[in-house]
Amino acid sequence: MWIYVNDRFVRKEEARISVFDHGFLYGDGIYETLRAYKGRIFMLRHHLARLRRSAGLIGLDMPIAESDWPALLQETLERNALSDAYLRITISRGEGAIGLDPRLCPRPTVVIIGLPLQSYPPQLFQDGVSLTVVSVRRNLTSALSPQIKSLNFLNNILAKQEATQQGAFDGVMLNHQGHVTECTTSNILFAKDQCLCTPSVECGILDGITREIVLLMAKEDKLPIDEGCYTTEMLQHADEIFLTNTTMEIMPVRRIDTQRIGQEIPGPITRRLQELFRLNLPRFLE
Amino acid sequence: MWIYVNDRFVRKEEARISVFDHGFLYGDGIYETLRAYKGRIFMLRHHLARLRRSAGLIGLDMPIAESDWPALLQETLERNALSDAYLRITISRGEGAIGLDPRLCPRPTVVIIGLPLQSYPPQLFQDGVSLTVVSVRRNLTSALSPQIKSLNFLNNILAKQEATQQGAFDGVMLNHQGHVTECTTSNILFAKDQCLCTPSVECGILDGITREIVLLMAKEDKLPIDEGCYTTEMLQHADEIFLTNTTMEIMPVRRIDTQRIGQEIPGPITRRLQELFRLNLPRFLE
Repeated sequence: MWIYVNDRFVRKEEARISVFDHGFLYGDGIYETLRAYKGRIFMLRHHLARLRRSAGLIGLDMPIAESDWPALLQETLERNALSDAYLRITISRGEGAIGLDPRLCPRPTVVIIGLPLQSYPPQLFQDGVSLTVVSVRRNLTSALSPQIKSLNFLNNILAKQEATQQGAFDGVMLNHQGHVTECTTSNILFAKDQCLCTPSVECGILDGITREIVLLMAKEDKLPIDEGCYTTEMLQHADEIFLTNTTMEIMPVRRIDTQRIGQEIPGPITRRLQELFRLNLPRFLE
Repeated sequence: MWIYVNDRFVRKEEARISVFDHGFLYGDGIYETLRAYKGRIFMLRHHLARLRRSAGLIGLDMPIAESDWPALLQETLERNALSDAYLRITISRGEGAIGLDPRLCPRPTVVIIGLPLQSYPPQLFQDGVSLTVVSVRRNLTSALSPQIKSLNFLNNILAKQEATQQGAFDGVMLNHQGHVTECTTSNILFAKDQCLCTPSVECGILDGITREIVLLMAKEDKLPIDEGCYTTEMLQHADEIFLTNTTMEIMPVRRIDTQRIGQEIPGPITRRLQELFRLNLPRFLE
């Protein structure tokens, strides 16, 4: 396995960073997860734009020119002989003296990891996954905006642990007002009375790229869309629910705690969007 | 410089961790900052108890037996010929495959860094520091409790950046209800009408060890204490304000935004507590 660290590709054993890296000491950094389909990267420019947005929101200078990323990611795929792949770009504040001040770190650390795609078991897509509404609330937007795809993941890890303890696939996180936000690594969407609903950005979510594509597909298919604030109860009364992220694409949900969702899995709207996603996929590969 | 990494002391250049360490990928880990006075560690057992508490709150098994810590910390001091020193214990979830689930990491990573103590300039203790109330809110207790001394520091880093941009020494962070919590790496205490006031744990703070000692000193000195919820306005009308943490001990505050605090710096109660802290220090060294 070849991993890009700072300015070169190294073997996995050599892909190491200093214990003074502020990514390690303070989680001071950002990341993006990308997916390649037969060597072509899904929504590359959108992912790079979001990486830039995250960097801007924490005041981190992007250490690699915009135009250099595609070749670097392509090289990561090629060196590792990857076709259907998972790519993770991590940029931390870099090595520096102890202290919160980012100015202690002269140069950000860049890491690019490429791995064969590990899909979720096909059975999950047929049966749907079970969710639980966890007690861990999503980070406050004014404390650490979920729109920053940062290395601070303990909020989600605590939620994931709670979901796992409940025997659920994942946890639905509410914001401090009790409105639905997202799961620990995916957006949540649901259908109710032939309308596609999903928490708005203002609820405190990461505006996922697959979420965006699904909303675009729905719009093109003339399906009414509502981005709003929803309670757990509204979610439990949905006709269909599904999750989206880059790795899972569109994953049906079977159950929220003890509440069974819908008549069939996947429901008709979920199936339609999965179909549209597949059909339109070539438009989104770069 | 000798740094303890996992199971041995290595040179700084070799003190490196894998890019697959979940401390780096997700900030999944905890830490403690300790101080040695002439080779003796301040409140050692309290710091170790808090490390254990943090570990428990994120479901991390402590990889080093309670009884082994004192010798390890002592060895860190000795190998680096340190007397007045700063010690940082970091425990991350360890190296593991990509994914939030802590069970992906079989063994936590332990790092102990020892450095000569870098005190704050004496002038600051004479003049007091200036603070600004920042717009970045403190993490929600139900999202990621400030009582977990974790590697997720972006909330505080964003607050620190805002304070720095305002030309202030540090930022006062409010909780989502608008109550005062703490600064980015210190607790805040103030005197009003001969009463020592400080935000209660319920406001969403790290219950600092120096804060605890100061409250103990005040109690022994028969000074009335109020741990409660305070607004910015109450802080601005304080007679005296000071900050506490392990490194700064007791630091007077001169100004909050445009509001000058008190008549003299340090004020009489701050001075009295600084004196008591110094006098009683030997009680707290181990």
